[in-house]
Amino acid sequence: MKQNIYDNNVFFQKYDDMRNNEKGHNANDVIEIPTIRSMLPDLTDMKILDLGCGYGENCKYFIDNGAKQVLGIDISTNMIEIAKNNNKNDKIDYKVMSMEDINKLEEKFNLVISSLAVHYVEDFDKLCKDVSNLLEKDGYFIFSQENPVGTGTILNEECNNETKIAIGNKKYYLLSNYNENGKRLVNWNNCEVIKYHRNFSYIINTLIKYFEIIELKEPIPTEQMIKQNPKYINQFDKPYFLFIKVKRK
Amino acid sequence: MKQNIYDNNVFFQKYDDMRNNEKGHNANDVIEIPTIRSMLPDLTDMKILDLGCGYGENCKYFIDNGAKQVLGIDISTNMIEIAKNNNKNDKIDYKVMSMEDINKLEEKFNLVISSLAVHYVEDFDKLCKDVSNLLEKDGYFIFSQENPVGTGTILNEECNNETKIAIGNKKYYLLSNYNENGKRLVNWNNCEVIKYHRNFSYIINTLIKYFEIIELKEPIPTEQMIKQNPKYINQFDKPYFLFIKVKRK
Repeated sequence: MKQNIYDNNVFFQKYDDMRNNEKGHNANDVIEIPTIRSMLPDLTDMKILDLGCGYGENCKYFIDNGAKQVLGIDISTNMIEIAKNNNKNDKIDYKVMSMEDINKLEEKFNLVISSLAVHYVEDFDKLCKDVSNLLEKDGYFIFSQENPVGTGTILNEECNNETKIAIGNKKYYLLSNYNENGKRLVNWNNCEVIKYHRNFSYIINTLIKYFEIIELKEPIPTEQMIKQNPKYINQFDKPYFLFIKVKRK
Repeated sequence: MKQNIYDNNVFFQKYDDMRNNEKGHNANDVIEIPTIRSMLPDLTDMKILDLGCGYGENCKYFIDNGAKQVLGIDISTNMIEIAKNNNKNDKIDYKVMSMEDINKLEEKFNLVISSLAVHYVEDFDKLCKDVSNLLEKDGYFIFSQENPVGTGTILNEECNNETKIAIGNKKYYLLSNYNENGKRLVNWNNCEVIKYHRNFSYIINTLIKYFEIIELKEPIPTEQMIKQNPKYINQFDKPYFLFIKVKRK
């Protein structure tokens, strides 16, 4: 099932407010974006596909850093509309398309990138296979997703964020579901959002069918970042992000 | 620092009692041993090195399954003594030697194996490099260790197993230390034991410097196993084992 939570306008308004109100100091801006950019190869003359491109900020960055052409796809028409307004460029195409449908694309790319969207995709093996088919030889796939240690704490029975217990300023989590891969329902901005939890061995075993692994990163906020935005202490009391860079075999 | 906890006779007696009293239905017998054996290549005519060979059960198994020659090393003289008594064979050499000293070996091997010992080694990069140097081209390194999600719940400040809170039959764990790699002190059989926690990205990033990754496994007890030995419910309320098979580049 393809999920399009960002076209739920109640959800989207809250998401957009969060991104705007905390501009420059939310987890996307201070960890996600710098980390994924630190893993990029030289982009000169590259053709790049951005899966779940959102507002198109990365697409614009790729062009500004030498890429020849970028295709940004997102299942959400809300997202693509903002991308077309805020990050318009002759060398960027934005397209409403789900990550599940990329096997319909007929071009090839030097780099496929995806920022915090892979955990919304049910069939990770198909995604890896599709990406591999779209990549030129030696092309890279670089993506971030929620960390399996984090999604592993979510129960798989029902929509329920309450798998933790707070005592003082410390949070304790259930881990008994970590090895049960599959659907998780979480409440975000008062909406039910589906995420797919996959443990580390499943992720690595699937990737190596199609790719050579180049690098993993599990970044955490620095003390400086926590000073600027104390809410990171709560957000990062469990591993939150996982970044993976692989190369087509 | 090389740790030799199994030559602490108080500790060793308790460990040996546990292994003997629960023979056939402890986590070693029902998960560790079958899983690591399920990952073995065809052993015919192989030269095999077993790091932290313990009682020598795997060494004997390798010979029984076609290996040409096995070297089992262990830092503990207690362990090597039992191995020499219980799993003696003309094709097996047992040697008191730490995993940190294997760069002194001058032979080459087709397979290096290690069962639940790697988390006692401080310098994982050196271990991988040393193993890689001891392997013939296309040789395999197969090892199990405690799962990083599990060791990630142990605090790094002091000897303290109490990073969990039990409510009813559920245990909740602190995860805030998962991304701080390094020494952990735990109390096991009333002795302080040093383990080294390394998060997944560190483990994978280090391995791919020397090896190609072939397979990961994070096994859990089946319902049948829990029926036979209910204590597994407690032991596996967090991920407990990680198995990795890699091939020399």
